[in-house]
Amino acid sequence: MGFQFDDAVAVIARGTDQYSANVHVGWDIGGNANGGYVLALVGAAMRDAADQRKPITVTAHYLAPLKAGPVEIDTQVVKRGKRLTTVLATVRQGDRDALRAIGAFGEFPDPSDGLFHSEGAPPTLPNFEDCPPRNSGSQQFPVALMDYVDVRIHPDDSGFARGQTSGNALVRGWFAFPDNRPIDSLAMLLATDAFPPALFNLTGAPGWVPTIELTAHIRAEPAPGPLRGVFASRFIQGGMFEEDGELWDSQGILVCQSRQLGLMPRL
Amino acid sequence: MGFQFDDAVAVIARGTDQYSANVHVGWDIGGNANGGYVLALVGAAMRDAADQRKPITVTAHYLAPLKAGPVEIDTQVVKRGKRLTTVLATVRQGDRDALRAIGAFGEFPDPSDGLFHSEGAPPTLPNFEDCPPRNSGSQQFPVALMDYVDVRIHPDDSGFARGQTSGNALVRGWFAFPDNRPIDSLAMLLATDAFPPALFNLTGAPGWVPTIELTAHIRAEPAPGPLRGVFASRFIQGGMFEEDGELWDSQGILVCQSRQLGLMPRL
Repeated sequence: MGFQFDDAVAVIARGTDQYSANVHVGWDIGGNANGGYVLALVGAAMRDAADQRKPITVTAHYLAPLKAGPVEIDTQVVKRGKRLTTVLATVRQGDRDALRAIGAFGEFPDPSDGLFHSEGAPPTLPNFEDCPPRNSGSQQFPVALMDYVDVRIHPDDSGFARGQTSGNALVRGWFAFPDNRPIDSLAMLLATDAFPPALFNLTGAPGWVPTIELTAHIRAEPAPGPLRGVFASRFIQGGMFEEDGELWDSQGILVCQSRQLGLMPRL
Repeated sequence: MGFQFDDAVAVIARGTDQYSANVHVGWDIGGNANGGYVLALVGAAMRDAADQRKPITVTAHYLAPLKAGPVEIDTQVVKRGKRLTTVLATVRQGDRDALRAIGAFGEFPDPSDGLFHSEGAPPTLPNFEDCPPRNSGSQQFPVALMDYVDVRIHPDDSGFARGQTSGNALVRGWFAFPDNRPIDSLAMLLATDAFPPALFNLTGAPGWVPTIELTAHIRAEPAPGPLRGVFASRFIQGGMFEEDGELWDSQGILVCQSRQLGLMPRL
């Protein structure tokens, strides 16, 4: 048996530039496939099209919610460069385009190769074991995804689920897999959208929050161990918000930056 | 006579989903068309394809430098939604794809419609008149673009051009047009890449800095007047850096967020 995540993002090549895959049952929020899971799924097909180069930056536009069941993924390599391979992708379910993506794939030099400059620091968190797991049944709405990822929220940021918002649109916590799958660049695409929306600590948790666009920059392959994540929304205006995310590895290296633009849920 | 910017981003429809345009002389850095200018040019074609809806979020992957001269822009509307129209685009010069883009286009509600939450503030700047203009001839390499935009750099952040780096990968300043063209959502695509790279204040200014990917989120149409901009790079590792940008209007509203992933120049 493989790891759950690898099963869930398995893609089968169907001739040139075409893949079949299954949106797996359970990787959803209230019945809609989680945005990070879908990003990892399309990322898996794009990575294959890019001759197994690794995701460096991937942008997805979410056009329609995906349900559990078969999907087709078309890829198009638009440039095979010395350093980067650029790939477009479309995820189709039934007769509907559900997602369009573009990404650049390559290799990760050692973070210490060349100039190394880091102005940030990972979030300070209680030990993994001392952060409450976010489980699938503890919310006002079902978050089935939490059976497949082990997301532990900083106790100061987890009150929204009990109706006690912190007043800061901030969520900090740990990310791991319950079956101890190592976290690699592909898995970080999932991790960019596996935490509860930071704005829930400002607005409460009214339910599904649609993502318009999400861009992930993978900055290094992570060292072994759970990742520390911090997600924040600073600007909510005109019915939209951004959410900025950072993932840090056990060696204190920034391994992923993400930003999404989302539509405010009806409050 | 129209405004210079409008001339430079003019696109001519050539039947369904195809546009001709000219990369104008002078909108370049050392002979390569500026990334923000190219983003605005492709954005103009995408906006037309989106029935003149305005850019909300646009992502571009830069595949090859563009030189002054004719280009073809192919667009593809992948979704016409109630709120957003999603468009893909390719910019081709000669037989080469130079840029691929994806964006969502729509209308801007008033920023005060619905929940308004802003955790940031515009950068504190000396008056526009008291900031030195960045002109085309004052650098170690020619920045012709500066004849077409009026970018004024905070005196504390402009030393890199004289070999005096501030030690912070930060650039703050004003953005306007010398012919007083009003700054709208399309012009902000240009403004996301019209300031000198923030990392020049850390590394010096060695020349051309290639952008892999740039995403702009337009958060509101700006009120009249020059914009205040702040650009910073916090993480330089593995030969890449991100640059985060914010543009603020004269009313103190955040009007654009941008992030690019770039390749470190050879130092």
